[in-house]
Amino acid sequence: MAEPWGIVLVERVTEYLRAVHAVRRVLAFERSPYQEIAVVELEGFGKALVIDNFIQSSQLDEYLYHELLVHPAMVLHDNPRRVLILGGGEGAALREVLKHPSVEEAVMVDIDARVVELSKEHLPEIHAGSFNDPRARVLIMDGYEYVMRSQPNSFDVIVMDLTDPYAGEPAQRLYTPEFMAAAKRLLRGGGVLVTQAGNSLLYHRDYLRVRSAVASAFKHYVEYWTWVPSFSIGVNFILASDHRDPSRLSAEEFDARLRERGVRTKYINGRRYAGLVLLGPLEPPEERQREGQ
Amino acid sequence: MAEPWGIVLVERVTEYLRAVHAVRRVLAFERSPYQEIAVVELEGFGKALVIDNFIQSSQLDEYLYHELLVHPAMVLHDNPRRVLILGGGEGAALREVLKHPSVEEAVMVDIDARVVELSKEHLPEIHAGSFNDPRARVLIMDGYEYVMRSQPNSFDVIVMDLTDPYAGEPAQRLYTPEFMAAAKRLLRGGGVLVTQAGNSLLYHRDYLRVRSAVASAFKHYVEYWTWVPSFSIGVNFILASDHRDPSRLSAEEFDARLRERGVRTKYINGRRYAGLVLLGPLEPPEERQREGQ
Amino acid sequence: MAEPWGIVLVERVTEYLRAVHAVRRVLAFERSPYQEIAVVELEGFGKALVIDNFIQSSQLDEYLYHELLVHPAMVLHDNPRRVLILGGGEGAALREVLKHPSVEEAVMVDIDARVVELSKEHLPEIHAGSFNDPRARVLIMDGYEYVMRSQPNSFDVIVMDLTDPYAGEPAQRLYTPEFMAAAKRLLRGGGVLVTQAGNSLLYHRDYLRVRSAVASAFKHYVEYWTWVPSFSIGVNFILASDHRDPSRLSAEEFDARLRERGVRTKYINGRRYAGLVLLGPLEPPEERQREGQ
Amino acid sequence: MAEPWGIVLVERVTEYLRAVHAVRRVLAFERSPYQEIAVVELEGFGKALVIDNFIQSSQLDEYLYHELLVHPAMVLHDNPRRVLILGGGEGAALREVLKHPSVEEAVMVDIDARVVELSKEHLPEIHAGSFNDPRARVLIMDGYEYVMRSQPNSFDVIVMDLTDPYAGEPAQRLYTPEFMAAAKRLLRGGGVLVTQAGNSLLYHRDYLRVRSAVASAFKHYVEYWTWVPSFSIGVNFILASDHRDPSRLSAEEFDARLRERGVRTKYINGRRYAGLVLLGPLEPPEERQREGQ
Repeated sequence: MAEPWGIVLVERVTEYLRAVHAVRRVLAFERSPYQEIAVVELEGFGKALVIDNFIQSSQLDEYLYHELLVHPAMVLHDNPRRVLILGGGEGAALREVLKHPSVEEAVMVDIDARVVELSKEHLPEIHAGSFNDPRARVLIMDGYEYVMRSQPNSFDVIVMDLTDPYAGEPAQRLYTPEFMAAAKRLLRGGGVLVTQAGNSLLYHRDYLRVRSAVASAFKHYVEYWTWVPSFSIGVNFILASDHRDPSRLSAEEFDARLRERGVRTKYINGRRYAGLVLLGPLEPPEERQREGQ
Repeated sequence: MAEPWGIVLVERVTEYLRAVHAVRRVLAFERSPYQEIAVVELEGFGKALVIDNFIQSSQLDEYLYHELLVHPAMVLHDNPRRVLILGGGEGAALREVLKHPSVEEAVMVDIDARVVELSKEHLPEIHAGSFNDPRARVLIMDGYEYVMRSQPNSFDVIVMDLTDPYAGEPAQRLYTPEFMAAAKRLLRGGGVLVTQAGNSLLYHRDYLRVRSAVASAFKHYVEYWTWVPSFSIGVNFILASDHRDPSRLSAEEFDARLRERGVRTKYINGRRYAGLVLLGPLEPPEERQREGQ
Repeated sequence: MAEPWGIVLVERVTEYLRAVHAVRRVLAFERSPYQEIAVVELEGFGKALVIDNFIQSSQLDEYLYHELLVHPAMVLHDNPRRVLILGGGEGAALREVLKHPSVEEAVMVDIDARVVELSKEHLPEIHAGSFNDPRARVLIMDGYEYVMRSQPNSFDVIVMDLTDPYAGEPAQRLYTPEFMAAAKRLLRGGGVLVTQAGNSLLYHRDYLRVRSAVASAFKHYVEYWTWVPSFSIGVNFILASDHRDPSRLSAEEFDARLRERGVRTKYINGRRYAGLVLLGPLEPPEERQREGQ
Repeated sequence: MAEPWGIVLVERVTEYLRAVHAVRRVLAFERSPYQEIAVVELEGFGKALVIDNFIQSSQLDEYLYHELLVHPAMVLHDNPRRVLILGGGEGAALREVLKHPSVEEAVMVDIDARVVELSKEHLPEIHAGSFNDPRARVLIMDGYEYVMRSQPNSFDVIVMDLTDPYAGEPAQRLYTPEFMAAAKRLLRGGGVLVTQAGNSLLYHRDYLRVRSAVASAFKHYVEYWTWVPSFSIGVNFILASDHRDPSRLSAEEFDARLRERGVRTKYINGRRYAGLVLLGPLEPPEERQREGQ
């Protein structure tokens, strides 16, 4: 049996749980001004981007995360032309956004140039050339600042592919009512926002904070989640809009829009979207919530 | 930060992935004639039964697994009176089965007396006294032998809470067409079988083997899954019947039956069941399946 | 290959190094008012006492540590009748001290009754019945307090089998000039003191502190060390006396005294003692010491 | 506290013991035709060469290993002019050999060109330019073959810096009477051979095999050992000659020869050599040897 020894990656899943991955190759491993960045090849999961010891994306299963992050939001909008991606430096959210032919410009704002550069160099399997799409515009700056200072009414869809809400201090100002209100201001009529929201079972309080912030700014929202094997944890999403209730987006309409737009996906489709919305988030049982978990 | 050091539990998730849990207490740790059994208290997950270094149940989240294993099958049946549980030595599947008041006898067959004894002694939070229910009958014997030799037409519901299909040799004869045919023979009119089925993404071939076996014996089946945090992996279920198509069990009927029977659950309900069935199993993308993954 | 998985012990060797031991059995695992105590059986090393996640003694190699701690000090003294052991709750230093037939009373002072009780119950292979020797007197109290308050001139040999000098706060007051002066006060004419001293290579500053403290109180001292496999690190000793220079104790005299006293050892003898004294401590090279390591 | 997480190196110390090192940088990580080679920077130990997941040399403590390997052998010889180093691809044994000004040629034979190339590129702190010394000749070939096919009477000193005797199959033919006889054939009058010999406590049988092989070929030999922190284990050496009994090399003569030759060392000197020889190897106690350990 191949034991994970030699060079391995130890990832912190919770305070008391670690995941240990066998590492086949180390393609890059450096400190940027913002964080520690590694690009590795994991046994079983393929190439992966690792930031501050958290796996961000792996070849095997990043499609799960990025399809669920991007397509429900894009499909909910009738005609997404301008899309803002906050974070997402490895280019996978960008790749999915650009599959929608109505997109005229996708602005990706990542704080760390090194994440983008290392991904461009080492992760073509993940970005799939999306950085070279003439519709893509990559800005290296703080997403928070970008949102606070941009012109109102300039985007149709905002995709928040940022640090986990439970990842400490940098996450504190991102998942707030103030930030959500500011993000909403950037949306023009019919605008849609989606964010990853951490994990609603193991980091329930942080999840509630994100949900409250979204709910304070938008009229409608839905919650859904999936397990991502390489993360060793589930990941939640919240999709919101003032214009249209995403819980009323039917499986048939979802599929029809993907079909009309010629968008091919590996996982998400109308039936699965409907299932995810019915399923809702995985939260602690009520008794434990009462205990204050 | 509390580092997981000192006494920890290292669990094999896949060939290349380990989960490391901080252990707060070791309540039992011994070799039975069949396996190594540990009862531990894990930081964050509470008490847990560990067999051959795989976490079987933890206080925090075993309800997820056991509710999904038991209630869809029980609800699908109009009037489950006799129920067979294969495995499930910690008594949690038994606990859920006995919530249904129509049950006259629940026969639990576990090969290992020590699992049952240690669970009785150390895991009251999990079995919740189910072993003392006069309707419970615990047999210590090989579930395979029990199925092969029992009287036909003697059960309404069979719950297979056995070793993972990917757990090597002992699983080889359990998830076969022959075994499923033998199990079906034990069911009387309207009978229902449910089995856990390992993981359909990371152990896809083993999952397909289970599905084929079920499909070879039953007219109708549905597939669903959830992530169970303490397992560090998702777990799939397959629910089958000749009598009634479980994909046509509506959310409303599901809830009505739970309500009529006075069954209280922490997680599963009609809406979530409907969502899970729509969602279906999480399998590798087609391209990878073609590659033979 | 037997992979260390399942229940394992993760020991902190240095800030950046961990040792991971496969655990075969957990005989006890509890928090006392002072510390976390585990008695385990390690694969390869046999039964072991573990305090606050540091292995204190293992069946395979505790003789190395305890023979080097005790016999040079006992041999250096012409006629050791009253011996004080500070720490050493598992009874192994006591066992070695009591091999010397001149001993009339061996007072062992350990702060934690649970260490002594658990060792008595689970580690007969290590204490070898020494607690039942009528010459043994076990006091449960703080060794520091004992030394500060005892009668002067009451012991011939003091054996300091205490926490590592690098183990943080509790060690701060033990390896000081004040404490060594107080300990010396307890010695009567010809008295000898020996202490373990941590590790002179990886914890050099802490080692220097111990050495200075000993040197401030005693006229003569020698330094020696060994690697103890189950500790994953070397351990140093300092042996001191005003009366007799331990560097002048010859191999022949060492062996003669052991022989006269009928003391049988597994490892230490005159030739090895002479070798250890010549070898001296393993310290960082001068250039690194100058850098302030 | 800095927890070793993120990218770490898990080293197999024994079947049941692993050492886990925090990794600060990965300078190279590749498979050669012979083995997996990594050059990393470890927290606390500095740069290190790692072959097949065993640390071979680390900046912090490789001097301990290489000084003990090289200088006793070189000092034992009156006038070492031609020296053969088997293995030692990182250039550290070469560095020590070349400190002796009598050396006219040092032939280093390593099977793996990539080890040498990666060491040249990434480990200048370890080889210290020794590859550029005009007296150094590096041959990329199997050391076994080299020894079997070389001219007799061509070397004064042979330094075996090869794989551990307990490292499985490749070691099987190296530490045999046949190989030692062949190696001895290469030595001219007064010739000296030294080999690392694994670990005499935890791998006692393998150690005995090496000792027997050396003893079968040479009239005189001495055994000594040290702990090397970055190895998490002690390492033994056996120094042999027909010409001169190394146990009769006095501390004074050792120091005189180093002084005459202008050789500066960080650790080894006459006094320590004398101590090491007196100390002898650390072997299991007789009782355990009788049990066949």
